[in-house]
Amino acid sequence: MQVSNSLKPALDAIGTAMDQRFDRLLPVPRDGRDRLYQGMRHAVIGGGKRMRPLLVVAACDLFHVDRERALRVAVAIECVHCYSLIHDDLPCMDDDDLRRGKPTVHKAYDEATAVLAGDSLHALAFEILADPATHGDPAARAELVLELAKASGPNGMAGGQMMDIAATDEAFDLGETTRLQQLKTGALIGFCLEAGAIMGRIPEQGRTPLRGYARDLGLAFQIADDLLDVEGSSAKTGKAVGKDAAAGKATFVSLLGIERARTQAAMLIDQAIDHLHSFGAEADLLRAIARFAIARDF
Amino acid sequence: MQVSNSLKPALDAIGTAMDQRFDRLLPVPRDGRDRLYQGMRHAVIGGGKRMRPLLVVAACDLFHVDRERALRVAVAIECVHCYSLIHDDLPCMDDDDLRRGKPTVHKAYDEATAVLAGDSLHALAFEILADPATHGDPAARAELVLELAKASGPNGMAGGQMMDIAATDEAFDLGETTRLQQLKTGALIGFCLEAGAIMGRIPEQGRTPLRGYARDLGLAFQIADDLLDVEGSSAKTGKAVGKDAAAGKATFVSLLGIERARTQAAMLIDQAIDHLHSFGAEADLLRAIARFAIARDF
Repeated sequence: MQVSNSLKPALDAIGTAMDQRFDRLLPVPRDGRDRLYQGMRHAVIGGGKRMRPLLVVAACDLFHVDRERALRVAVAIECVHCYSLIHDDLPCMDDDDLRRGKPTVHKAYDEATAVLAGDSLHALAFEILADPATHGDPAARAELVLELAKASGPNGMAGGQMMDIAATDEAFDLGETTRLQQLKTGALIGFCLEAGAIMGRIPEQGRTPLRGYARDLGLAFQIADDLLDVEGSSAKTGKAVGKDAAAGKATFVSLLGIERARTQAAMLIDQAIDHLHSFGAEADLLRAIARFAIARDF
Repeated sequence: MQVSNSLKPALDAIGTAMDQRFDRLLPVPRDGRDRLYQGMRHAVIGGGKRMRPLLVVAACDLFHVDRERALRVAVAIECVHCYSLIHDDLPCMDDDDLRRGKPTVHKAYDEATAVLAGDSLHALAFEILADPATHGDPAARAELVLELAKASGPNGMAGGQMMDIAATDEAFDLGETTRLQQLKTGALIGFCLEAGAIMGRIPEQGRTPLRGYARDLGLAFQIADDLLDVEGSSAKTGKAVGKDAAAGKATFVSLLGIERARTQAAMLIDQAIDHLHSFGAEADLLRAIARFAIARDF
């Protein structure tokens, strides 16, 4: 596994923390909603890199945010990420059978359960952020909600997924592919870092380094994903590979070639880390995550 | 049309206000998301009773909330209502071709667009509520988000839809059917009234009458819907009728019979109006909406 020594314990710890919290958050009710909760649990417990939750915690640590509160925000973002995976995997979308090494929710259950499990996780994310337990200052809670809604809606993740579907029919160039990925994955990664600043009540002007880091990291992360779709194995990534090329979809790899894509990703990660120069050793976890983003094989 | 003289202008006005605001809110972008926005516009502009937005405005009026701000909350709730209709109409759910007298979104566009249009409206609702333009007090914005998330998530609307799907296979009794409807439609109707109190910064103890009104109205509204599914026409309701009986689903009509269902609905509406006795003429719109809920033929 291509995880540096410094990052391995952090990844393990966030994985365990997420599983524990989702287990407590989603007890299966004894009524007609049992299947819904089982579908939600299937999607959020066990598996996934948990990179977004780790980014939230790392960003919150920079500003000495209480760990339990940071983990609540991490759970909320993972709810949104997992809801999007459930919906994107549906037969009418990317039609995937495998996710995080397990059957997708509509395969393990059925499509109706998958749609509703996604919708439920979506609502739950906002419920968690707006709850007073997440932050004592209601202005922080309202700002978290506003920024997550923007990052995940039609001007963010959902809009990016729509562009991705349209991309199969149209010849996208590098600029359009970058814009698509900024919406589809970049916006939510950006929110992970922004959330740290919001939780720490850091004013606008203090957020520039984190925004730069997030932008470069998000793009590099997506290039690495495109490389894994070409070079990776289904056994390690836990999802189908080779799908983009089969669909004739424009990706960073199809546009740049493998070598230039790899160089570009490495350059972006150097740039991402440069943005953190004003922070000391406290940003080491963010630096390690950046290196991991392009070194991973899953 | 069975609308009393006092309510007709209010229904027309809220219909126009919603259409105008959605038109401004959703300009179609000139990129790969054009189809997404067209799908969203198809779902939210033109048609529908707009009963939930009218309830929000009527509840806000009780507490002299600024009309523009009340309409923002109304738009947010209609976003959630319409997202749920789009998803519930999908082939894997209720499989409906007709909604508000038009083809459903997946018929007019396609299933992927329908899933993403629903998801986008869902996110947009929270973006609107959390925006400072909705209320100057961030505590009000955070509370609006928290209560809408609860009302629409697995312990509310989405959970109720899951129970409704399960109800086809199981023999539900009156208690279970009431509980199902409380989640599926009652919770969101409850939020419409609660939102008025939140916008008016009314403390907990002052909200009891509105909660009683909402509970009785929500149940009566659902009984009326079940009656329309049996007695109504597709031309007037703008959606398929006779579906529940065909699916062998337990409804208030199948459990009570037509006559008792009608009596029960009328009794609930009397009760709903009784809850408003402490309010004067300012609650007349809420009273008219209650009467309309069971007198409507659409």
